[in-house]
Amino acid sequence: MSIIQAEHIMETHPEHARAPHDSKYANGSAFIQDHYCSVDEAGIPITDMGFLHADAAYDVVSVSRGHFFRLDDHIERFELSCEKFVLTNPYSRAETAEILTNMVKLVGVKDAYVWWCVTRGTNSNGDRSDLAGFQNKFYGFVIPYMYIAHDAERSRGFDVIVSKEFIRIPARSVDPTAKNLHWMDMKLSLGEALLSEKDWSVLTDEEGNLAEAPGANIFFIKNGEVYTPDSGCLEGITRKTTLELCAELGLPTHVEKVTADQLRDADEAFITSTAGGIMPINSVDDIVFGGTGGPGPLTATLHNLYWEKRWDGWLATPVDYDTPVNTESK
Amino acid sequence: MSIIQAEHIMETHPEHARAPHDSKYANGSAFIQDHYCSVDEAGIPITDMGFLHADAAYDVVSVSRGHFFRLDDHIERFELSCEKFVLTNPYSRAETAEILTNMVKLVGVKDAYVWWCVTRGTNSNGDRSDLAGFQNKFYGFVIPYMYIAHDAERSRGFDVIVSKEFIRIPARSVDPTAKNLHWMDMKLSLGEALLSEKDWSVLTDEEGNLAEAPGANIFFIKNGEVYTPDSGCLEGITRKTTLELCAELGLPTHVEKVTADQLRDADEAFITSTAGGIMPINSVDDIVFGGTGGPGPLTATLHNLYWEKRWDGWLATPVDYDTPVNTESK
Repeated sequence: MSIIQAEHIMETHPEHARAPHDSKYANGSAFIQDHYCSVDEAGIPITDMGFLHADAAYDVVSVSRGHFFRLDDHIERFELSCEKFVLTNPYSRAETAEILTNMVKLVGVKDAYVWWCVTRGTNSNGDRSDLAGFQNKFYGFVIPYMYIAHDAERSRGFDVIVSKEFIRIPARSVDPTAKNLHWMDMKLSLGEALLSEKDWSVLTDEEGNLAEAPGANIFFIKNGEVYTPDSGCLEGITRKTTLELCAELGLPTHVEKVTADQLRDADEAFITSTAGGIMPINSVDDIVFGGTGGPGPLTATLHNLYWEKRWDGWLATPVDYDTPVNTESK
Repeated sequence: MSIIQAEHIMETHPEHARAPHDSKYANGSAFIQDHYCSVDEAGIPITDMGFLHADAAYDVVSVSRGHFFRLDDHIERFELSCEKFVLTNPYSRAETAEILTNMVKLVGVKDAYVWWCVTRGTNSNGDRSDLAGFQNKFYGFVIPYMYIAHDAERSRGFDVIVSKEFIRIPARSVDPTAKNLHWMDMKLSLGEALLSEKDWSVLTDEEGNLAEAPGANIFFIKNGEVYTPDSGCLEGITRKTTLELCAELGLPTHVEKVTADQLRDADEAFITSTAGGIMPINSVDDIVFGGTGGPGPLTATLHNLYWEKRWDGWLATPVDYDTPVNTESK
């Protein structure tokens, strides 16, 4: 089964055509604490602890064909992330949804990558240890939709490595279920993958249990059953979506401790992310799944079903591009 | 022995009086990629990976009585941090020193907290995995000197806890010898300390070996000998300084694996940081060192020697406040 060329469709299909927008938002829009601006102008104050200490929670939701996907789920997860890090979103859930929607409208894109966060902010009394003394701040931006894996890469499948140099930051250090800015382990494992001429990496914990890939959850399929780690990873919305799609297809799923060895012994594998959906893996540590190149058949089915259902309006929230945004108000 | 009231001296002694400065730099100065500005105006572009992924190396050096302390050591460590994270400082070491010096001159303070970093930056080709495709960026700021522990706190000694909830991010995830923005484990352990009405926290690795405190190295003294962890922590410049002061005082030092149990059984303890120097600990997990409150005698000696030698010009680089900075050039 061939992979839906989602990126090509987004670039060419009339339903994805960009709505009229102010040229200042050509590259994207942003919301900085209390006002909208272009992404090019958007700055984080250099003394905000969100920058100095990666002291923040964030989330990313996508828009395709002018509809958010699972917007409520993303906002719900974001609020839980904030709670785990003792952060308070200065905006209500409804206000957050409004800000995200307005940012999309300003850019006019029908396919959008929507990023937002709440940071610790700055502390007027200068006492770093007094977390309650900080005024938490909201920042966000919207840019045209971004792919971890492009059409060509999804069609042939990623070649990945299990990182030998790095383990994922453990939950007892930084809770991975609270979406956070602590990425250095993942970034450097990407460098390790590139050095061996591979596309992406997967990290384990120190005992070799699979954790997650940079910005993505890891899945594999063995004898028609689907496996993904139960811990040490973000509880991805695309991961949750994939488990639901598996149920719809009658594929048994196992959310449990799984090892890198099990991944290497699998029949198929893929990663999932808001930035790219379901992305097939071709090989891991030079072991080509199924012995032949390309996405496995169940992976391809899941991949295509994901885009078909999304474009069919599943769990979608429409963006009304016709009503103008008042950038003077919040 | 009483603790030198360094903060009080800095606020009142004529050698610490602030030099003339443009009022726009009242709160501090900054350098953003290629230009100087006030710290209030300084912003990090929201899509810079230094913010989005804590993908950066940084360092902090201090100025007291108009002199940098160990400036070359800090710049040397910073360059090593960059190397470990595959980052390239766009400025040479001499240019870096010049930028740091100019930022101090703009603020006019004789006692300064000097922060700078190099981030991954943004990638024009949009490929996140291609680390070499990013243009690394330099950012810095200078504010009046900042204390982790004020005079009163240093005089009575910090009450600290060994965190039960959090372990320090392990070196196999993010190398702590490369000074980095990954602080959430440390920040939340401070919250844990505050909940038990303590001043500061210390983190261990998962086996109970001491790692470091938020922004500081941990030391303890047992039977006149000084101990500090050999791994799992930043190789602090104040830590290095303290080891040298111990040698000067004839105190044997042990840089080795040490446990939280050894700390609890110690005679004295302290933390060290550029932001505050040598800071005495009064108690750990409610165990008061030496059975009586206040800094231990060797700790007090080290504390005072640190400030005496600094103000005597030890390893100092003077700042020439009289020559104006050309803020139009780099």
